[in-house]
Amino acid sequence: MRTSILAAALLAATLLIAEDHTSTSDQPEFNAKGELLFPANYREWIFLSSGLGMNYGPLAATAAEDPRFDNVFAAPSAYRAFMKTGRWPDKTVLLIEVRAASSKGSINKAGHFQSGLAGIEAEVKDEVRFPTKWAFFSFGKGDAAGRLRPAKEGCYSCHAQNGAVDHTFVQFYPTLLSVATEKGTLKVQP
Amino acid sequence: MRTSILAAALLAATLLIAEDHTSTSDQPEFNAKGELLFPANYREWIFLSSGLGMNYGPLAATAAEDPRFDNVFAAPSAYRAFMKTGRWPDKTVLLIEVRAASSKGSINKAGHFQSGLAGIEAEVKDEVRFPTKWAFFSFGKGDAAGRLRPAKEGCYSCHAQNGAVDHTFVQFYPTLLSVATEKGTLKVQP
Repeated sequence: MRTSILAAALLAATLLIAEDHTSTSDQPEFNAKGELLFPANYREWIFLSSGLGMNYGPLAATAAEDPRFDNVFAAPSAYRAFMKTGRWPDKTVLLIEVRAASSKGSINKAGHFQSGLAGIEAEVKDEVRFPTKWAFFSFGKGDAAGRLRPAKEGCYSCHAQNGAVDHTFVQFYPTLLSVATEKGTLKVQP
Repeated sequence: MRTSILAAALLAATLLIAEDHTSTSDQPEFNAKGELLFPANYREWIFLSSGLGMNYGPLAATAAEDPRFDNVFAAPSAYRAFMKTGRWPDKTVLLIEVRAASSKGSINKAGHFQSGLAGIEAEVKDEVRFPTKWAFFSFGKGDAAGRLRPAKEGCYSCHAQNGAVDHTFVQFYPTLLSVATEKGTLKVQP
């Protein structure tokens, strides 16, 4: 009896922890500390595009020795709103998943395919919660609640200045770029 | 009056043509000629992985001068079945989208991002329709019904021999690879 009570208590504690750290919602959810809950099913969200070894920095003119893949996903509701309007609605969540790039493996002899997970980050639009309207979160490898990055880290200014639509790099997402072009919502020409 | 009848007839003809060439189903659909209808909403399917300049051929040991990205998508129902069982159900549709790779553009200074569409191909499992159980289709850039490829083109034998699960290259889809490993459904070790 004591064992089953203990087991039930442990299960309840585990569920509480899971609830505090992950979400299956399409909308941003936050815990009491203001951390973004990890959207556990983001791999079923809408894929926007993938890059390999992309780099925006001034020292990046030469290719990285160990390039990474970046997969970008949009929450389905935000994606559908964008396809209709060319704009991101409030409560948009975009996820970027960083993966290692392998070259030799199985029958592959050239180029790169994706392998181990290296990190997950999110960009969230919440016009009431964030003074900058958009905020950035890092989830490590997806096993923890996302910590809000301080504004000084440069994500904010770079996205605000260079994003083709709002604070987002639609210039690198070809299917969205054609929608934004058609709807006239591009703020910079890519 | 004649104009509106003509317009209605033209509209009906257009709808018939569209109906003959595209589908919004998650399951494979074929026209009277046995061509696979183009799944027009495949960009809302589940993303499996992306590669850049991947090549399996014996002449591919050096990197291609003009590498392409390959984005692979699974029909949602097939994906969900795979996540539960590590196997592809009958009526699975997988899509591969080939895109050009750009390097210099907007603020990007290194690596590659995706740009123009270069082609779309599908792999379909239909155990009754195809003697080989799986078949391959090409859609060009997505504006036409998919023509069934003849078996001699080598897709069949390469997928049958080298696919890690059934006739598919799960070894290149990291999130599926871990599921197949756990479920014990890998037929070759990647």
